Amino acid sequence: MSQTGYRVAVVGATGAVGQQMLKTLERLNFPVASLLPLSSKRSAGKKITFKGEEITVQEATPESFEGIQLALFSAGGSVSKALAPEAVKRGAIVVDNTSAFRMDPNIPLVVPEVNEQDLKEHNGIIANPNCSTIQMVVALEPIRKAFGLNKIVVSTYQAVSGAGAEAIDEMYNQSKQVMNNEEVTKEILPVGGDKKHYQIAFNAVPQIDLFQENGFTFEEMKMINETKKIMHDNELHVAATCVRLPVETGHSESIYIEVEKNGVSVKDLHEVLQEAPGLTLQDDPTQQIYPMAIDAAGKDDVFVGRIRKDLDNTTGFHLWVVADNLLKGAALNSVQIAFSLQKLGLLKD
Amino acid sequence: MSQTGYRVAVVGATGAVGQQMLKTLERLNFPVASLLPLSSKRSAGKKITFKGEEITVQEATPESFEGIQLALFSAGGSVSKALAPEAVKRGAIVVDNTSAFRMDPNIPLVVPEVNEQDLKEHNGIIANPNCSTIQMVVALEPIRKAFGLNKIVVSTYQAVSGAGAEAIDEMYNQSKQVMNNEEVTKEILPVGGDKKHYQIAFNAVPQIDLFQENGFTFEEMKMINETKKIMHDNELHVAATCVRLPVETGHSESIYIEVEKNGVSVKDLHEVLQEAPGLTLQDDPTQQIYPMAIDAAGKDDVFVGRIRKDLDNTTGFHLWVVADNLLKGAALNSVQIAFSLQKLGLLKD
Repeated sequence: MSQTGYRVAVVGATGAVGQQMLKTLERLNFPVASLLPLSSKRSAGKKITFKGEEITVQEATPESFEGIQLALFSAGGSVSKALAPEAVKRGAIVVDNTSAFRMDPNIPLVVPEVNEQDLKEHNGIIANPNCSTIQMVVALEPIRKAFGLNKIVVSTYQAVSGAGAEAIDEMYNQSKQVMNNEEVTKEILPVGGDKKHYQIAFNAVPQIDLFQENGFTFEEMKMINETKKIMHDNELHVAATCVRLPVETGHSESIYIEVEKNGVSVKDLHEVLQEAPGLTLQDDPTQQIYPMAIDAAGKDDVFVGRIRKDLDNTTGFHLWVVADNLLKGAALNSVQIAFSLQKLGLLKD
Repeated sequence: MSQTGYRVAVVGATGAVGQQMLKTLERLNFPVASLLPLSSKRSAGKKITFKGEEITVQEATPESFEGIQLALFSAGGSVSKALAPEAVKRGAIVVDNTSAFRMDPNIPLVVPEVNEQDLKEHNGIIANPNCSTIQMVVALEPIRKAFGLNKIVVSTYQAVSGAGAEAIDEMYNQSKQVMNNEEVTKEILPVGGDKKHYQIAFNAVPQIDLFQENGFTFEEMKMINETKKIMHDNELHVAATCVRLPVETGHSESIYIEVEKNGVSVKDLHEVLQEAPGLTLQDDPTQQIYPMAIDAAGKDDVFVGRIRKDLDNTTGFHLWVVADNLLKGAALNSVQIAFSLQKLGLLKD
């Protein structure tokens, strides 16, 4: 670890996203003076490796945050609700990857490529948006800025790693069972905490998170509400249908948009997206070039392709947007927020 | 076989859809006096079983159709183009499951639940629509009839069996290779006749059929053009994004619609769909009841669920529509057309 740098805690250090956070802090060389991996009581005592050093994971308590400057949370909403205010009380800035604080009007919800400046309004906690929201706004914000945006209709194709490491195991286990003609074990997906569990292997399941009374799932409402908050546009029409697929990592999204400005062409969109931060354009049908989940997995960027002008509506466009849901959709975005905080002078030395 | 009944030929009898046609004719007890299985030269000589009788598959030639009253074609567009007119010349009525004649203004494109009466305009050939179109119009026609329909935006989640039996083998083979950490063999998908081939196992591939110059694929344009033709509405706005998934059988569709009438509720849609032919409503979020590909496989009906009113547009709705792409999407619809022809007195005795 560096002599100079920040005292950083990672809460949920043994989980799928927590592990990615550690790797990303290391890979992007965030200035870490000391690293404190925290977890539930159950996982405390495990070892993680950070920059070649083995560190024992400790149980997260309010006192854990004494002297911590930056705490990255990814251990579930209830842990964040209980401990994030404790961390702030002790002087830490919290970047929270759960949905606990996302819609709190006093807490910025940030994707650095889109609304980095919102960080200045923080009161100790910064929320990291939902994975499926992040990749969508990275792709659509450059379009919104250039041409205005009235309407978004998105259908998602989401990977099982969004439901945690156990969901990945379940998918592969079920795949083997199907191919061996064995009975299929269904214990986790579509939602660990819901009543019924369905096979994900060789299937498509139109449920991510629990249902709300209006018939939308929480995941769908997250995409709708978070997008409006991040883009600062409550008048924006957003609708979402969220679907889980037998894909390990990499969420894909089929997005229909209507821009404000007339006369916009696919070429105009290409030009704007080519210049956009955190984004790679992969759009050449003549060469069968378009983004795919297995290609996006392990990469930092959001990938955009299959851009078509709607055949009826002159302001309508269709896009296909893919990103690694654990990286840009979670861990990477959190670490990028940390870098932005540093850049804006918001991290105390 | 029955003493009374029709002399029926099935062209492409050894293919995935052809096999389903034979099974469906038998299962629904279509009156068959004699059955003639036809195929390419390569598959001629194989045996098929129909109603307990073993029959040798013969090579399809113009002369094969002498004395045939009904010919079901599913052996690729070029075979249909060459042989369907020959069958008609010899007095047969042709139900063609390829895309060869679908957009010909002189040839009816029929889904019996939707536009059975169009059969009366036939000139010998009747076209069976594309699989992904059929299930969508079965779900949307009752809504259109009751409330009018202005706009459809569909994103599909399509099974590999739509690309033939070899694509199914490829998916399972690739799945094994991925799980065994072996190199993945890519020879067929996304499109047998295209230049590049991509892994479908644990992936989502946004290409079905070849690309057109406008950036849409042929599959997408089929959904767009066929829907307008079947619904007799050239002003209807239709857009489609078609995506292949690692699912064996069962296409799913996330559909956004805008109806004409104001004040329509989800309950209104439920009522209309509950009465609709060929359709099962599976829509109870409180019990996690919604359609899924693995449940629809092997069933005749189109399944509809996840019906939600759009949160911004008062005439907007979202639906999730699933059906067996080999049955209602192909073989079953062809056999239903045969029954409709009989019912309307259009099959010569």
